[in-house]
Amino acid sequence: MDTITNVLAERYATKPLREIWSPVGKVKLERELWIAVMKAQRRLGLPIPAEAIESYERVKDQVDLASIEERERVTRHDVKARIEEFCRLAGHEQIHKGMTSRDLTENVEQLQVARSLDLTLSKAVSVLLRMGARAQELRDLVVSARTHNVAAQPTTLGKRMAMFGEELRLACERLESLCQRYPARGLKGATGTQLDTLTLFQGDMDKVRSLEAQVLEHLGFPKSLGAVGQVYPRSLDFEVVSALYQLGSAPSSFAKTLRLMAGHELASEGFAKGQVGSSAMPHKMNSRSCERINALHTVLSGHLAMAAGLAGDQWNEGDVSCSVVRRVVLPDSFFAADGLLETALVVLDQMEVFPELIRAENARYLPFLSTTTVLMKAVQAGAGREEAHEAIKEHALAAVRDLRTGAASHNDLMSRLAGDRRLGLCLEELEDILQEEERLTGAAREQVDAFCESLLSWSKRYPQAATYKPGSIL
Amino acid sequence: MDTITNVLAERYATKPLREIWSPVGKVKLERELWIAVMKAQRRLGLPIPAEAIESYERVKDQVDLASIEERERVTRHDVKARIEEFCRLAGHEQIHKGMTSRDLTENVEQLQVARSLDLTLSKAVSVLLRMGARAQELRDLVVSARTHNVAAQPTTLGKRMAMFGEELRLACERLESLCQRYPARGLKGATGTQLDTLTLFQGDMDKVRSLEAQVLEHLGFPKSLGAVGQVYPRSLDFEVVSALYQLGSAPSSFAKTLRLMAGHELASEGFAKGQVGSSAMPHKMNSRSCERINALHTVLSGHLAMAAGLAGDQWNEGDVSCSVVRRVVLPDSFFAADGLLETALVVLDQMEVFPELIRAENARYLPFLSTTTVLMKAVQAGAGREEAHEAIKEHALAAVRDLRTGAASHNDLMSRLAGDRRLGLCLEELEDILQEEERLTGAAREQVDAFCESLLSWSKRYPQAATYKPGSIL
Amino acid sequence: MDTITNVLAERYATKPLREIWSPVGKVKLERELWIAVMKAQRRLGLPIPAEAIESYERVKDQVDLASIEERERVTRHDVKARIEEFCRLAGHEQIHKGMTSRDLTENVEQLQVARSLDLTLSKAVSVLLRMGARAQELRDLVVSARTHNVAAQPTTLGKRMAMFGEELRLACERLESLCQRYPARGLKGATGTQLDTLTLFQGDMDKVRSLEAQVLEHLGFPKSLGAVGQVYPRSLDFEVVSALYQLGSAPSSFAKTLRLMAGHELASEGFAKGQVGSSAMPHKMNSRSCERINALHTVLSGHLAMAAGLAGDQWNEGDVSCSVVRRVVLPDSFFAADGLLETALVVLDQMEVFPELIRAENARYLPFLSTTTVLMKAVQAGAGREEAHEAIKEHALAAVRDLRTGAASHNDLMSRLAGDRRLGLCLEELEDILQEEERLTGAAREQVDAFCESLLSWSKRYPQAATYKPGSIL
Amino acid sequence: MDTITNVLAERYATKPLREIWSPVGKVKLERELWIAVMKAQRRLGLPIPAEAIESYERVKDQVDLASIEERERVTRHDVKARIEEFCRLAGHEQIHKGMTSRDLTENVEQLQVARSLDLTLSKAVSVLLRMGARAQELRDLVVSARTHNVAAQPTTLGKRMAMFGEELRLACERLESLCQRYPARGLKGATGTQLDTLTLFQGDMDKVRSLEAQVLEHLGFPKSLGAVGQVYPRSLDFEVVSALYQLGSAPSSFAKTLRLMAGHELASEGFAKGQVGSSAMPHKMNSRSCERINALHTVLSGHLAMAAGLAGDQWNEGDVSCSVVRRVVLPDSFFAADGLLETALVVLDQMEVFPELIRAENARYLPFLSTTTVLMKAVQAGAGREEAHEAIKEHALAAVRDLRTGAASHNDLMSRLAGDRRLGLCLEELEDILQEEERLTGAAREQVDAFCESLLSWSKRYPQAATYKPGSIL
Repeated sequence: MDTITNVLAERYATKPLREIWSPVGKVKLERELWIAVMKAQRRLGLPIPAEAIESYERVKDQVDLASIEERERVTRHDVKARIEEFCRLAGHEQIHKGMTSRDLTENVEQLQVARSLDLTLSKAVSVLLRMGARAQELRDLVVSARTHNVAAQPTTLGKRMAMFGEELRLACERLESLCQRYPARGLKGATGTQLDTLTLFQGDMDKVRSLEAQVLEHLGFPKSLGAVGQVYPRSLDFEVVSALYQLGSAPSSFAKTLRLMAGHELASEGFAKGQVGSSAMPHKMNSRSCERINALHTVLSGHLAMAAGLAGDQWNEGDVSCSVVRRVVLPDSFFAADGLLETALVVLDQMEVFPELIRAENARYLPFLSTTTVLMKAVQAGAGREEAHEAIKEHALAAVRDLRTGAASHNDLMSRLAGDRRLGLCLEELEDILQEEERLTGAAREQVDAFCESLLSWSKRYPQAATYKPGSIL
Repeated sequence: MDTITNVLAERYATKPLREIWSPVGKVKLERELWIAVMKAQRRLGLPIPAEAIESYERVKDQVDLASIEERERVTRHDVKARIEEFCRLAGHEQIHKGMTSRDLTENVEQLQVARSLDLTLSKAVSVLLRMGARAQELRDLVVSARTHNVAAQPTTLGKRMAMFGEELRLACERLESLCQRYPARGLKGATGTQLDTLTLFQGDMDKVRSLEAQVLEHLGFPKSLGAVGQVYPRSLDFEVVSALYQLGSAPSSFAKTLRLMAGHELASEGFAKGQVGSSAMPHKMNSRSCERINALHTVLSGHLAMAAGLAGDQWNEGDVSCSVVRRVVLPDSFFAADGLLETALVVLDQMEVFPELIRAENARYLPFLSTTTVLMKAVQAGAGREEAHEAIKEHALAAVRDLRTGAASHNDLMSRLAGDRRLGLCLEELEDILQEEERLTGAAREQVDAFCESLLSWSKRYPQAATYKPGSIL
Repeated sequence: MDTITNVLAERYATKPLREIWSPVGKVKLERELWIAVMKAQRRLGLPIPAEAIESYERVKDQVDLASIEERERVTRHDVKARIEEFCRLAGHEQIHKGMTSRDLTENVEQLQVARSLDLTLSKAVSVLLRMGARAQELRDLVVSARTHNVAAQPTTLGKRMAMFGEELRLACERLESLCQRYPARGLKGATGTQLDTLTLFQGDMDKVRSLEAQVLEHLGFPKSLGAVGQVYPRSLDFEVVSALYQLGSAPSSFAKTLRLMAGHELASEGFAKGQVGSSAMPHKMNSRSCERINALHTVLSGHLAMAAGLAGDQWNEGDVSCSVVRRVVLPDSFFAADGLLETALVVLDQMEVFPELIRAENARYLPFLSTTTVLMKAVQAGAGREEAHEAIKEHALAAVRDLRTGAASHNDLMSRLAGDRRLGLCLEELEDILQEEERLTGAAREQVDAFCESLLSWSKRYPQAATYKPGSIL
Repeated sequence: MDTITNVLAERYATKPLREIWSPVGKVKLERELWIAVMKAQRRLGLPIPAEAIESYERVKDQVDLASIEERERVTRHDVKARIEEFCRLAGHEQIHKGMTSRDLTENVEQLQVARSLDLTLSKAVSVLLRMGARAQELRDLVVSARTHNVAAQPTTLGKRMAMFGEELRLACERLESLCQRYPARGLKGATGTQLDTLTLFQGDMDKVRSLEAQVLEHLGFPKSLGAVGQVYPRSLDFEVVSALYQLGSAPSSFAKTLRLMAGHELASEGFAKGQVGSSAMPHKMNSRSCERINALHTVLSGHLAMAAGLAGDQWNEGDVSCSVVRRVVLPDSFFAADGLLETALVVLDQMEVFPELIRAENARYLPFLSTTTVLMKAVQAGAGREEAHEAIKEHALAAVRDLRTGAASHNDLMSRLAGDRRLGLCLEELEDILQEEERLTGAAREQVDAFCESLLSWSKRYPQAATYKPGSIL
């Protein structure tokens, strides 16, 4: 029980991902590959009985790690042990023909990557659609847009959600394109020359090509590499990890912004049903899940560095100086990305918004944000531009001073302006300007609508993503 | 003269890149943007005289940095200074209407990025095609494939080139897809709500959309973002830099391999015409250019870390905490990538191969690499499998021992085997096996052909890439 | 004028740093090294006239880059050109005896590093002392400590400053230790075997050792490496850059916290005298300098990755695959660190605090933060523990609800509790608890005092650091 | 059995490290802390019976994870569950007085770090001493020093070992200094103000200080931080990880160099006793362990990036946005460093050197490396300097050409020079020059001696390091 487990897998990632990368999962994928190869070899004329293949398929999911380990202690060779185990279960000896160890290991790792990519894309689309739903829901709630962390202009909270959503959509587009291009190494032998399969088919290059094509199709790879060495190029691993890092960026910016909003009590990441915050300090709704999202993004930045360390470092036809790194970075980057996306879904489902405090914030800043309109109206009403500008400036400075020294408890800039003859505007006119919130938010609402519309094709392409429900998180 | 210049720009990058990112280049792109906006605004009904636009276009390239600096000292505002200068030159005041500073700066930086991406892709395709040409040329030269840096199987040097070439092609595919997707921020105002252009067109959303579409088309952007904040998402910068890093990976692996081959005197990166190595130590053809390729890739890994630091760190609608980083990382990553690719072109053009020493290496290792064939023939000739295996093993161990102790100066394994009755093979038969090099290289040649064929569509799509000649490097 | 300059050097770093790394600065350091070598050689018996050395010293600072460049065009060798120029100016030919190019370049680069380290340490101590001064000044100002960005307990603003100050002190200790250990490569020849100096002194190892010792002492290095190769170990560069990164951490955390406080209007980074914020939006005091600090720290993270890429990558006695990287990372990481520290000084000098708004924040949260004391007093006053706890919880939840829905505009928890018989406490008693702020801040003040005391030895060791005044920043 | 384990812990790290970071190990350290606190509290007058402390000590090592988990299911609070378990075992309720969760978790994590640092330093010193032993053993074996991966000058293999050894010594010095400075957070309460311990001791600051001092001493920390917030500064974690990365650099450069030498068959990393290489390909002694060293260094570069992501990112008094990252980076970076050092020890113990092939390499290059001596002697013998230089150049170029085209099978430069009248040197004189190897290696031997002498103080300070034997590796 005192095993040191993979914390990313066991605490943050979900079951489907864990199953791909677990010891048992890996054995199953190996067997899937062997079966695909046998089927193709049989179709190409090798004397492999259909009945043998069936036997293998029947026992494919009977994985007994202890028995394999036992065999390994005898053979002292891990691949051999797994071959033996599978053959003994099936009662045949037909697998791994014309294959080298690398044909097995490289392709199985790529299968793990490819299936993890698919799962990750699907979950990312879930997050994307959820962002869209939130954007729609909050489409009209006016908030103070902040630049430099200071109120700058009115916008809507829905538009803010759409902003992060659009960033995520860019990342999903890239990931989708990667899934569609991701090539397998294929059966290329020990140094990539296809010597073994060529020998197996007595130099018949057409059969060699056809074998590979059939195997790839069976496994779901869109294409294969043509001229690899011992290993597929590790810059492909880098491409995968950098896509995952990019995927985590929008949720990470969203999470940071929600942490900021929570600090102002404008919103919170909410609680799971049944979960209770501190009863003594009910104001303390800590953004732990958002912090986790940011943390997992930082973890991914480390995986990115590891993967970058592999790319461009191939000596000749390849080495295993990448091996340890990939044992860490491939599963772990998917675990981290999965945990990040899962947590983002939970936050999106549970987040709470406090409209009254949002309105209070707007009330504090809106007068300042409206001064250009005040100036315009004053000039229309006959004031001299320079004089009006000067008047506004004086009152704005005084208003902010009083707010900061506590002399004023709310922003009374409009009253001050109403009392200044230089402007010629009455309080009513001035307060009307503050009601123009909707105009002042510009095209925020239209942008939300356009963003949501752009998601339709995604929900159509990934129907399961729309309905996916995250599990509960720790 | 004692200025500290940007070393990546001044020592490694080429002129077209420098022109995009130089002070003058930036002013020109700004002016291009302003002109594009004016043209669209005029088409949409704003009262901007055609003649004014012509005036601006006429003076567009008259960039006087000193004069701009002078104005900035007065206005204390950089954008304002550049507006004034351009207006004074043109004799009109029509630019920057309905635009905020961010509308100018974000879009111009993206123009710089987009044009740099195009130049970089084109140069990468040059490298790709050159790798193809080398692969074709060296298609049949048999070399010892190495795994773990030790001879493992025969392959051909052309196939090795194709291996790195294929890795580069993957990176080019990704870069091409990025170029086709790269979206501009567009004219979105200070916090992204399009308030200013909406006001300019009195709330007419159709005109607002049309304005942006026309401007984008004029500048060559495929699309724009819809719901951004103050800034476009910085994960887009990350995507760019990670694509550049990936692009450098294949040349970097190639360069490392050439450095290794140079250490064995199998090849060298060659010299520029007229350049002379050390005359006293003519064997010392240092792989300085290859080392530079590797170094620039390491530099890019730092840019990658910087860009990663920006992604996922947006607070609300944005800040300038990314500003300094982007001033460094955007130009510098392109300069580094450009220098890397330019150097790779020089190496590909100048590299030398020493076939005799390659053959000597093969002669040393081929007997070891052929033992499985020897075993097969011995069994065919009537030997017992186990006894033959034992015999081969004994002699191989002895041969390697003698080679390492200097007792033997060349690999005489075949003679040893010929003298062993257990195998029943004569020297002639055994040496015939060594002649089967071609068979032993498997599909290496076919792989080269397939790779080269795959390049045809690239040379068609990028005709200038095929003929591009690198300048001389320091 | 259209040169692409080093933006870190020209925009962010200060003059003393620029002078070390500028073309002229480098030439001067080279000459310093040559002179140090000549002096030692003369003392050890080589026939170098004292008068020649004097001549070299006299012209040491006459650096004419154009003339050197001219010579380089003729000799086509950069070191040779600089030797010639210096000799021509001095009218002698006595420099560079028994030295190889690496003896010059490695040691001069290390001189640049060593002097930059000293400058950086001194400036970091300035920041440290300034943090101490601010901590002292704000020692008693009670603020709400925040964890998870939510108010958690009272502390004082001085203690918060001391917290960041202490983090910086740790980094300064490490940097000081590095300055004291930083070893020079010394005069070791082309591959590190000291062949050339041994030959110069006809095999007299004592003289060889003495030469190096005298040169090091003259240049101010505490020691030298004994068994280097062509180059000193690049993990030493990594150590330098990682120390700079660590140095930037405390200012960076401080800057982020100030950006957060500015968002709550509790403090701002202030303005330079004469500088005016937006008059229309006087509340908008953007934390641009703090953002710059964070940005420069991110830039340093890229330099860290570059330096990490060099460490552990030495092939045999060395290569120049590190050369390009070091041209970028060595100067640039110092420029970035210098800019970061300079900006931190400006912020520390100009930052403003708004005590009234800080008090308003405390008023909002203090009742929640005091509930454990309320419970204790209620029990002392005879209430049942469980019942009192339940009462407090009910009222706290109601209070926060009313604050968030706007039903209450200030935290009236104490009034609510006063009205509940279950507790048996009157309003006066309850409000007394809120006055215990001082007790509730625990040892915050004592911690400030202890921190400030710990700085005394620093201000003694670095007297100039205490009085250093930052220049104005862009 | 289908658990996903931590691959770095289970495959590469050794037991002592695993025990520190395992679930059981962590519980034991927590208990150690609680006991230390109780002892100090008792000494300072709190009514904690000595007998209770003894009871706790007696059951300290009885860790039943299942029982703790059971309790956690009930209490739903992990710290509480572990408190209960420990109290139930001891039959007392005296632990955790005046402590908050952070007082427990931060300090225990630091205990894990501190003990791991000690173990790591000790193992690094083992590697250092072993490098010294190898340097001594190979002190006189002349090899061709390579720069740019090409032969440059003679040196000795011992000196090359000393070169890497000296780099490691620098890293050990830094690590030792860190171990001596590494400060604990201490008992500072929830936000760092020591409120809880102050309350416990009724405001007696002296007792508060004394409590912490006693606890630290008991746990072995040299000092504590004075003004921390919720958490100790994360730049301290960065300092730790960067020290580990630096520590891996010298072994990593050594491993790369050994991989290069193996490619030339000059040396190999050897085999464990009983282990057999491929019998058919006995030349294929793959440098798998060296590759692993390099791989683990790359893994550490990722941990470095993660740790860098934490430093400088503290908001106010702290958050848990670092929590996930530290769960990964703290144990894993120690596991990786431990695996790296352990593997380095195995390689150092098993590495083989092939002196005959080293001599053959020298024979190939030495004539080129000796031409400056030939020139000197020719001039001494009366030849004109320019003519002699020209003659040498001609023959050297011809010799290298013939070697590369296979026209010559060994370097016959000396014979060629002997036949040229312009030089006036006979073959005997010329071949004598080649015998001057010892002189040509300069101070290589003296450097080895000096390096080894510098290790004496290390073996004295770390006596167990000298005798440590690595376990067998996978």
